[in-house]
Amino acid sequence: MSATPHPLDPLTAEEITKAADVVRPLSEGQELNFRVITLRETPKDELVKYLEAEHLEGHASPNLSRCARVEVIIKRNEGKSDLMEIIVDLSKTVVIKQQHLQGKHSYIDSTYMKEVEEACLADAKVQAEIKTLGLPEGSTVIVEPWAYATDGSNDMSRRISMCWFYLRLLSHADANYYAYPLDICAEVSEDLEVTKVYRLPSSADEQIHSEVRPFDRQKIHSTEASEYHPNLRSSTRATTKPYQVVQPDGPSFQIDGHKVSWEKWTFRVGFNYREGLTLHDIRYDGRSLFYRLSLAEMFVPYGDPRAPYPRKGAFDLGNDGAGINANNLRLGCDCLGTIKYFDGWHNTASGLPLKLPNVVCLHEQDDGILWKHTNFRTGHAVVTRSRILVLQTIITVSNYEYIFAFHFGQDASIHYEVRATGILSTVPIAVGEPKPPFGTIVAPGVLAPYHQHLFCLRIDPAIDGHKNSIVIEESHAMPMDDTDVRNPFGVGYETRSSYIEREGGFDLDLTKNRVFKIVNEAKLNDMTQTPVGFKLLPSYSQMLLAHPSSFHARRSEYGKHAVWVTKYREDEMFPSGRYTMQSMGGEGIASAIEKRADDVKASSVRNGDVVVWHTFGSTHNPRIEDWPVMPCEKMSVGLKPVNFFEHNPGLDVAPSTQEVNKSVLYDEAASNGRGCC
Amino acid sequence: MSATPHPLDPLTAEEITKAADVVRPLSEGQELNFRVITLRETPKDELVKYLEAEHLEGHASPNLSRCARVEVIIKRNEGKSDLMEIIVDLSKTVVIKQQHLQGKHSYIDSTYMKEVEEACLADAKVQAEIKTLGLPEGSTVIVEPWAYATDGSNDMSRRISMCWFYLRLLSHADANYYAYPLDICAEVSEDLEVTKVYRLPSSADEQIHSEVRPFDRQKIHSTEASEYHPNLRSSTRATTKPYQVVQPDGPSFQIDGHKVSWEKWTFRVGFNYREGLTLHDIRYDGRSLFYRLSLAEMFVPYGDPRAPYPRKGAFDLGNDGAGINANNLRLGCDCLGTIKYFDGWHNTASGLPLKLPNVVCLHEQDDGILWKHTNFRTGHAVVTRSRILVLQTIITVSNYEYIFAFHFGQDASIHYEVRATGILSTVPIAVGEPKPPFGTIVAPGVLAPYHQHLFCLRIDPAIDGHKNSIVIEESHAMPMDDTDVRNPFGVGYETRSSYIEREGGFDLDLTKNRVFKIVNEAKLNDMTQTPVGFKLLPSYSQMLLAHPSSFHARRSEYGKHAVWVTKYREDEMFPSGRYTMQSMGGEGIASAIEKRADDVKASSVRNGDVVVWHTFGSTHNPRIEDWPVMPCEKMSVGLKPVNFFEHNPGLDVAPSTQEVNKSVLYDEAASNGRGCC
Repeated sequence: MSATPHPLDPLTAEEITKAADVVRPLSEGQELNFRVITLRETPKDELVKYLEAEHLEGHASPNLSRCARVEVIIKRNEGKSDLMEIIVDLSKTVVIKQQHLQGKHSYIDSTYMKEVEEACLADAKVQAEIKTLGLPEGSTVIVEPWAYATDGSNDMSRRISMCWFYLRLLSHADANYYAYPLDICAEVSEDLEVTKVYRLPSSADEQIHSEVRPFDRQKIHSTEASEYHPNLRSSTRATTKPYQVVQPDGPSFQIDGHKVSWEKWTFRVGFNYREGLTLHDIRYDGRSLFYRLSLAEMFVPYGDPRAPYPRKGAFDLGNDGAGINANNLRLGCDCLGTIKYFDGWHNTASGLPLKLPNVVCLHEQDDGILWKHTNFRTGHAVVTRSRILVLQTIITVSNYEYIFAFHFGQDASIHYEVRATGILSTVPIAVGEPKPPFGTIVAPGVLAPYHQHLFCLRIDPAIDGHKNSIVIEESHAMPMDDTDVRNPFGVGYETRSSYIEREGGFDLDLTKNRVFKIVNEAKLNDMTQTPVGFKLLPSYSQMLLAHPSSFHARRSEYGKHAVWVTKYREDEMFPSGRYTMQSMGGEGIASAIEKRADDVKASSVRNGDVVVWHTFGSTHNPRIEDWPVMPCEKMSVGLKPVNFFEHNPGLDVAPSTQEVNKSVLYDEAASNGRGCC
Repeated sequence: MSATPHPLDPLTAEEITKAADVVRPLSEGQELNFRVITLRETPKDELVKYLEAEHLEGHASPNLSRCARVEVIIKRNEGKSDLMEIIVDLSKTVVIKQQHLQGKHSYIDSTYMKEVEEACLADAKVQAEIKTLGLPEGSTVIVEPWAYATDGSNDMSRRISMCWFYLRLLSHADANYYAYPLDICAEVSEDLEVTKVYRLPSSADEQIHSEVRPFDRQKIHSTEASEYHPNLRSSTRATTKPYQVVQPDGPSFQIDGHKVSWEKWTFRVGFNYREGLTLHDIRYDGRSLFYRLSLAEMFVPYGDPRAPYPRKGAFDLGNDGAGINANNLRLGCDCLGTIKYFDGWHNTASGLPLKLPNVVCLHEQDDGILWKHTNFRTGHAVVTRSRILVLQTIITVSNYEYIFAFHFGQDASIHYEVRATGILSTVPIAVGEPKPPFGTIVAPGVLAPYHQHLFCLRIDPAIDGHKNSIVIEESHAMPMDDTDVRNPFGVGYETRSSYIEREGGFDLDLTKNRVFKIVNEAKLNDMTQTPVGFKLLPSYSQMLLAHPSSFHARRSEYGKHAVWVTKYREDEMFPSGRYTMQSMGGEGIASAIEKRADDVKASSVRNGDVVVWHTFGSTHNPRIEDWPVMPCEKMSVGLKPVNFFEHNPGLDVAPSTQEVNKSVLYDEAASNGRGCC
């Protein structure tokens, strides 16, 4: 790592300490709770100049200030507190901006959730309610607090936590308590008081109630169907033989601090508490492609309509944070081959730096064949293998895991892969009740409600520069009638293109093979006579199902369309707003666009600094095969050059040979212990 | 391999010889051209009984006859010939059926195409036309014959070949002649006579003509932009370090003849000249899932409307054959790790067995994470890696390559992956002409016309038996109004299911998250209370663009809908009919369905022996990045259990450990030759 951080490097431990030191005096003696101390990225206009100088001259223009964005809660008298956002200039060691975030809530953190859990379990009403259940000896009640999804039922000016109750039937600490959802529910106030305790519905039609019902022992079922931890299972399959990746000459990548170079690619790795892994200044063979790529938000609305379940709607980035919930990745478990790990840095409540070890890993993978041609006249085959570079981060948000990975290809493509795994969020149902139309019964008394996962990938392009446009290209059959003499045989089809002129949300259309291209109108490809560009390979997904008037829809506006195009704005990083906790809606991308729709200059996206937001995900109606831990469900978004280069960018990849690859011919006779035929 | 072939084993060399011996006397002294000698698969009702006995008893019922299907051309007097289909009972050594296929044409083969090429080049008119071009010294004219796609312009009772002309500018035999399409075109009759020679259009508006125009030397361009063969390129990148897969204890699969066992999966590998790789009797953990999986057809219609290009419409299976065009796969080039190869068998024109070596390979791959959960309370992570079993075959059809692979997962999923690679089919365009709306200019004077690749995967299910139904399940928002009191917060959504009762073609609908499930209504999942099933994960694709009245559309009816459901019929294997060569249309799946639509019994698909056909592919509007050889374009279709098992089928996969995987920590200091910070 260089002694002086690059402007795109995340804050160092020293910088975090320094930022906290600058902020502390602002509290005037009140208690401070440092929520966030993170890099305030350099404004784009400055950073672009810096990067251009860096790439042109080989060294950077020197005078960029490093700034920290600090989110801090100042505890005032009478239990009140102020959430402040403070920008600290680290070079000058001064506060350059501060703002009181009235009515906003900071994200939730595990420390607070632990306090909620303890307060809930310590509450006499809760204990009395638990007693009525008559739980099995040796079992443990687990309380899982969730951020409250706005549903219009409560005052949202202070935080409320929803507490779901589960039973850990076995003494083993990793026993799967989601297999025993209890029908108790509690609400806990910001001041850690239990304000309500009630019983959950036990059938599709029932509502919350207060009727005392003991735990139904018919719900107790075999560990084979409910436990994923190997210590709690009778056996694991022994048939899977070892499979190792060997890179005898080391990996093909070079790492210099947060800068990665690999097979003509260069980019910088960023990391913050909220988005987790971010990528910056992405270039191929020296040409600029993307200024910034990031997962900007994800929303998991549950489709169970019964109160209180409309309060289950998790903004896993805005409420929880992909960075602070990132797993500590372990060598040889999460990847194969030669692996580079990146640590992240966050901060404690008191403003000390907190290391998040191994939150991002980087390694190469073989991805099958890159290209092949066999000349049928000579019988000569030329085949190249596709090597990809993978940057991966894995987050745990309570029950679920998400695996996020950027894949860089030798063909100058980027793919963003999401895998959803982990454990379904479950709710109780009475044994013998029929399956409700909004959930799947995965074990006796266990309902896994339907839900959606809606991701938003933010693509800030820089296709050969920062003035880009978005083209919608469609493939249409040519008319076959008197209006068009070109198509007498009826086989003709053509592409029709139109530029997006104004900000907006757009839909996919398979029937027209609708393609979204990011192009640079000022740069024509010499050969194709068309603007150089990259195209989006979307992940085809159903959009948000919640009713437009619902809080879910109003809070997650990006879930309405698959593609959003906006003009770049410094503080427009999150499609549901920066403060999603108990948000009331109207702070998302659609509202922002609507507000400036009448201002042509503000809403024009032609030949300017544009941002593309891609909404995708899954409508996850659980299968029993997702239980007790779900096999990864994969989604993938691609970005591919389209008439950007002069030819196949992977044309110079060396042909694949046995000399290098050292594969092994399967010996049937030896393996079967007998001869053939 | 067992001494007695399994009923599903492809014909052995001895059986091919025997079949030819039985057929030869039928010629009554006329010359015979054996086109096909292949396994006539045992009728399903017999084979199902056999397989059930085999799996139940551990050994098979003994008395199944092996039959060969023989396609042979008997050359009659006066240049006439009869195409015959003959079924030979190999056990009894007798012909059990024979049929004269009036008006049908057999597939094209490389021997005949070579004859066409030679006849074309030997023709005086052709030579005179070539002379007018004034071609560069040392260059070679290459004639590429194509099967004629019916366009209504000629009598289709005899075969016609379209001859496209290219220039191999360099002396190297593997020089890329597609970089120099010449504007000559010739038509060659079945009797190898050149019937027409003309010049191709040179702009979007021009038509075929006879004007003499010399070869434009402005079309000559650099080898860097046109050659893929490493011997013809100045350099290959040397940055990609070796990457090897090591399986120290050998692979996890077992092979017994054509039977494959791997991680609870068992199935049989078939192979024939037309479909290439086929899979049979696919079971997981002993439970039946699929009777047969195969690529049933693919069609490549070109969108260039100008005559004679409407004649470019290739049925790559029906006209060419995925089996006989399968590559001889090479160890360490097409795959990594421990690899098992399967040979195929075909026949010579004289009826001798012909070995097609290494046409299918089988190996394992690591596929990232299978499932993971980190208990945030204990910090304990359990992670398993996904191992997949890959069966791959690669075909070359003139310029293009297709890589077809079935992936079997430990989560009981099957994915069918198609990769398109190879070289674009090019046509000439005058240098300086603007880009036509139906093609991309990829090099000077080289137009790559738009086209589609439409694949049809035939899925013959046997979900816990042979009586299956197809369910369409959609996810719908619940109404949020007075009609439905269930949804006061507007967040509710539910699945709505309907059974397909009658044969038909169906479309995908992302907006409804429409899912096609294959279920067994007689078998309910104990826990979910729903029929056991598998769901189709479709490859979302634009359907055929050609006008419904065009020959392209009439000949490739399956291209109209993404999903077709039919009742199983013994001879309904191909969605555009068995004989696609110069077919006139009306022989496809839509016509078959329509013919029996009024017969309720014949068209009912509820709770019976059903077949699902999935149409998918790509609308391939070439990018310059696809030139001169295209990086693989991937498509994938999945089949996943849905409430079929009792839990995650991969739950017992052993956790991933460094002890087994032996990954390597990247040593930044060592790699950079300097210390950190």
